[in-house]
Amino acid sequence: MIVVMEKGASREQVQHMVERVEGLGLKAHVIVGTERTVIAAVGEKREHAKESLESGPGVASVLPILAPYKVASREVKPEPTQITVGSLSLGAGSVGLIAGPCSVESEEQIVSTARAVKAAGATALRGGAFKPRTSPYSFQGLKEQGLKLLAQARDETGLAVVTEVMSTDEVDLVASYADVLQVGARNMQNYRLLEAVGNSKRPVLLKRGASATMDELLLAAEYILNEGNPNVILCERGIRTFEEHTRFTLPLATVPYLHHKTHLPIVVDPSHGTGHAYLVADMAVAAIAAGADGLIVEVHPDPERALSDGYQSLNFAQFREMAERCRRVAEALGKTMAPAELLTR
Amino acid sequence: MIVVMEKGASREQVQHMVERVEGLGLKAHVIVGTERTVIAAVGEKREHAKESLESGPGVASVLPILAPYKVASREVKPEPTQITVGSLSLGAGSVGLIAGPCSVESEEQIVSTARAVKAAGATALRGGAFKPRTSPYSFQGLKEQGLKLLAQARDETGLAVVTEVMSTDEVDLVASYADVLQVGARNMQNYRLLEAVGNSKRPVLLKRGASATMDELLLAAEYILNEGNPNVILCERGIRTFEEHTRFTLPLATVPYLHHKTHLPIVVDPSHGTGHAYLVADMAVAAIAAGADGLIVEVHPDPERALSDGYQSLNFAQFREMAERCRRVAEALGKTMAPAELLTR
Amino acid sequence: MIVVMEKGASREQVQHMVERVEGLGLKAHVIVGTERTVIAAVGEKREHAKESLESGPGVASVLPILAPYKVASREVKPEPTQITVGSLSLGAGSVGLIAGPCSVESEEQIVSTARAVKAAGATALRGGAFKPRTSPYSFQGLKEQGLKLLAQARDETGLAVVTEVMSTDEVDLVASYADVLQVGARNMQNYRLLEAVGNSKRPVLLKRGASATMDELLLAAEYILNEGNPNVILCERGIRTFEEHTRFTLPLATVPYLHHKTHLPIVVDPSHGTGHAYLVADMAVAAIAAGADGLIVEVHPDPERALSDGYQSLNFAQFREMAERCRRVAEALGKTMAPAELLTR
Amino acid sequence: MIVVMEKGASREQVQHMVERVEGLGLKAHVIVGTERTVIAAVGEKREHAKESLESGPGVASVLPILAPYKVASREVKPEPTQITVGSLSLGAGSVGLIAGPCSVESEEQIVSTARAVKAAGATALRGGAFKPRTSPYSFQGLKEQGLKLLAQARDETGLAVVTEVMSTDEVDLVASYADVLQVGARNMQNYRLLEAVGNSKRPVLLKRGASATMDELLLAAEYILNEGNPNVILCERGIRTFEEHTRFTLPLATVPYLHHKTHLPIVVDPSHGTGHAYLVADMAVAAIAAGADGLIVEVHPDPERALSDGYQSLNFAQFREMAERCRRVAEALGKTMAPAELLTR
Repeated sequence: MIVVMEKGASREQVQHMVERVEGLGLKAHVIVGTERTVIAAVGEKREHAKESLESGPGVASVLPILAPYKVASREVKPEPTQITVGSLSLGAGSVGLIAGPCSVESEEQIVSTARAVKAAGATALRGGAFKPRTSPYSFQGLKEQGLKLLAQARDETGLAVVTEVMSTDEVDLVASYADVLQVGARNMQNYRLLEAVGNSKRPVLLKRGASATMDELLLAAEYILNEGNPNVILCERGIRTFEEHTRFTLPLATVPYLHHKTHLPIVVDPSHGTGHAYLVADMAVAAIAAGADGLIVEVHPDPERALSDGYQSLNFAQFREMAERCRRVAEALGKTMAPAELLTR
Repeated sequence: MIVVMEKGASREQVQHMVERVEGLGLKAHVIVGTERTVIAAVGEKREHAKESLESGPGVASVLPILAPYKVASREVKPEPTQITVGSLSLGAGSVGLIAGPCSVESEEQIVSTARAVKAAGATALRGGAFKPRTSPYSFQGLKEQGLKLLAQARDETGLAVVTEVMSTDEVDLVASYADVLQVGARNMQNYRLLEAVGNSKRPVLLKRGASATMDELLLAAEYILNEGNPNVILCERGIRTFEEHTRFTLPLATVPYLHHKTHLPIVVDPSHGTGHAYLVADMAVAAIAAGADGLIVEVHPDPERALSDGYQSLNFAQFREMAERCRRVAEALGKTMAPAELLTR
Repeated sequence: MIVVMEKGASREQVQHMVERVEGLGLKAHVIVGTERTVIAAVGEKREHAKESLESGPGVASVLPILAPYKVASREVKPEPTQITVGSLSLGAGSVGLIAGPCSVESEEQIVSTARAVKAAGATALRGGAFKPRTSPYSFQGLKEQGLKLLAQARDETGLAVVTEVMSTDEVDLVASYADVLQVGARNMQNYRLLEAVGNSKRPVLLKRGASATMDELLLAAEYILNEGNPNVILCERGIRTFEEHTRFTLPLATVPYLHHKTHLPIVVDPSHGTGHAYLVADMAVAAIAAGADGLIVEVHPDPERALSDGYQSLNFAQFREMAERCRRVAEALGKTMAPAELLTR
Repeated sequence: MIVVMEKGASREQVQHMVERVEGLGLKAHVIVGTERTVIAAVGEKREHAKESLESGPGVASVLPILAPYKVASREVKPEPTQITVGSLSLGAGSVGLIAGPCSVESEEQIVSTARAVKAAGATALRGGAFKPRTSPYSFQGLKEQGLKLLAQARDETGLAVVTEVMSTDEVDLVASYADVLQVGARNMQNYRLLEAVGNSKRPVLLKRGASATMDELLLAAEYILNEGNPNVILCERGIRTFEEHTRFTLPLATVPYLHHKTHLPIVVDPSHGTGHAYLVADMAVAAIAAGADGLIVEVHPDPERALSDGYQSLNFAQFREMAERCRRVAEALGKTMAPAELLTR
């Protein structure tokens, strides 16, 4: 067994673990590496040894050694990153609320939604102009016309605009309208696209792929960071599991885990994460309680008539109630979520 | 039930299936679509009907319409069930806090833990006397001696005792000491055990199996309810997925989903659900925010030296801090969690 | 489509949904069951119909009846599609064998591998020039130089070349060297890329995403087919599950399932599907037995020194033994796999 | 990184790996343990290092040290175990074929099935008398009457009887009728039951739990072996994944993996593993090709009218065709499956 000590582990902690290893009847070999100290425990395997050693003082883990990502790592930059763009501020105690329709459908729809979500406390507007759809026969978005409508909604409300970009050759176009570029779950490992948004000046909201591990997500972020773009917002939006009562399984433990491993802010998408409007608000509140730096939520003036994702969209009243509950929980935990009336253009 | 015929199904095949449906005592409505024919089977649900019809000639699939559970269903009993046993009260606005070590190890250990968790606001004591262990070479628990120590801890603190029962022939013994019988995740579909705890007078805490669907969990509860024991507490403790940064994936959306489908109370186990002590408190708070009726949390005086599960156990100070945060969030959402000082024997 | 109403749905809600169904141009059949009411919606499938109806008042769920893909469906084209390009022939009884290194590394490496796999019976050469790598710090491939080496290996052996394309703006370049364009698992839902390869003249080998359902895979194929490119080869390469003893879980039941649903040929990748060289040959043989139309296998002159995927690559002798066993099983099942000596340029 | 050498690794292999580690710019510490040699590689992490080292000569793995199971391990007993009981022989080149209905329903049903499967080459009869059912309202089996009918079918055909036992207090009863005791997937971690069948004299067919890892399966076997019963047959029957087109996902790579890790024979259940009769035969053949020591298959005289699992049961003609194809593939791979006519009572 290999006991990996924390980077800053003290001499006393290492000595303590050596004694613990020997107390298990094992022989301890201390190997002082260039960055860390590890202890190889030699001998016949003892019950509980691994489990027991894992909770020792100064112990990072028992077995795997170094994380594969670098720039994203909290070991490299211990203090949390706060990303601020226009009305949206995320991370380091600031909780952002991004809301809007799945797809931009019309001027009336996007502007009325922007006003309603701003009134309820949202700090950014979401809306899809280029839509990745499972079927080629589904509505594919209004494309550039949708981007123009988003910009118009920003003009009228002051809300920063978050919207998806699907392809390298659309990055410049989308970046000319959007405040934050969203990379969707299906493109999380589209490395050319990651490089392209890494080369843009816009902050990037990077959604976790439906079966991506934490290392894969952080390495995808690394592709963007590595191009010189430091403003990456991670987004948990649910994973593919055997569960069938929700569209995806929303694993909120990724929030504290990611806070432990990376300095980047983490937002949660309870709309895709559950796939049912009646589950969205409870999971939004739970995400805030788990420590999320923000939420991204689908809201539509008339979900029943939405061109996409209506079944998981909140109407204005439902969103207001959700935001209010989130705010109460954030405050109970010592965080601030700006109430609607403090937001000015 | 809806019987969907294959695209090229013949008239004879459709007629055959109509007769099969009617042979089950159901009424058949044939609907000829532009591409396929479907047969709606109307009437009270019959055993085997779905499975039996699925293998008919020309049948593409059979779509069920009704949930398979009955007594557990919220449609049958709309108001939430509150379960109260000694110091523990769960459901209908009352949030219970069950805490204690993975295994009972000694009088000193269990009694000191009981006092500490009670002081922090716990309303019941957990502790394993019969331990299901993955390996036959692991510590298997103190067995009846462990039960006696749990009873002693109850005598000294007034906390209700929750402990696991693993086998039909141990039910009477465990029930003679415990206030609540726990059925572990690995036994969720041990139907003989479900029948046996259903026949005992004790409330049952039923843990979700690591790959159980919601229907399977509710049908397991149905086995217990069906024997005349109405006091079933459901427990979400995490599922097996591809994620490897946590021991299990803890899907909190099951909490609002279950509240929608069943009147039974739901508790969450953030200890097994994450497998890492540093993630437990955030997920406990998130579970309360998602609407859980209670928590079951592993606490140990000295996790590093625990005989089992030390890596996911909180120490007393960590548990106190967790309970305090949970209480603040519960209050922010209009629920009550009894503070420690109100608990009397 | 079948709209299932909630148990307590009101007459007004049912009437509302009937009007919504009819508003979509579909005919509504109301079936009043003993416990619930369902509405059968008959007619040609409409875009958004399912999603839109799901958010209606009093609706419990909407059950689809028709598969969402069209051109890929076996119902549209019952006879199997055979794809032939140069030395490679797949489908309709013809079993192809695609083999070669994960990455093209040098002239010596790719040419010697091409010769060795051809001698063992391979009918096409694989090799990555543009490599999608999880980490930005990993070897990214030789790019155009790699394509040139692949073309050289084809010149010297006559083997058709299969290689991956990662981005829309590389399609023309890759298509100018390759016989078959491979779309990797991570790009299965990169819709712009699917459209781009759909517009090229080359056959496409489309790998299943690690968490893609069958419908999602066939709809991704549909994006390509829909652009007028009929030559799509589906590839099962393993899925993400909780299993940790293999890199992915290789679910061979997809082979007979896909043969049932689509006319397109299906190949299996036992290298990525297992992630361990010692498991590759047994799973290759099993794939042939399950009915696969071909295999794509990683082979390297010296796996221990490969720049990528060495741990799952076969050496020449292992590959020869694997091919021989596959051929014996194919013959036992009445299929033909061309022996090496019949292959001429 | 820790390179774990194989138990019998030669001095040359160890030296080779030390050089490989040093060739990566890392410092190598050789630690000669009581059972194995490991090499700790110290220094800054190099790309591919782990992947590259994993394929070195004599390398068992890179990182985790000892498997948790002992008696089941191939390192303890290198030669494969063959289990023979009456007409059934499994392992070490002998391929067994266990077939019969999901549930015993009547004398006519079980005896006719036994005759038909024997005529097609089956070497044992399966049939459930005690049935674990997801719902308490489903058919629970004929219980002791079912066991008597199985014994009668054995009397008339000479086929060994395989049947499930669900509870400790039924072990003696079931063992008095059955040749092989089956432990179902849902009871794989019912440790009291494992101990009880471990104490019986009967061979045990142990089904993998739907979300059990390989270590968990082998440790469950270890519970049985540890009680002094050496005759454990492992059974792969499919796992819970996100796939919805099959009832479970059948991961055949477990067959060669288990052959690598344990000396115990492995059978495959393509009926539960797919859940659809039309997929069973192809997966049965694939399992044989992957190296399975046997199959367990559901067969019913009239699947459409079966009391359970009809949708995944073969009729007599389908089973005969399946067995014939399996036999051809077994022979092509140098194994023997007894043809029907050689079986005598």
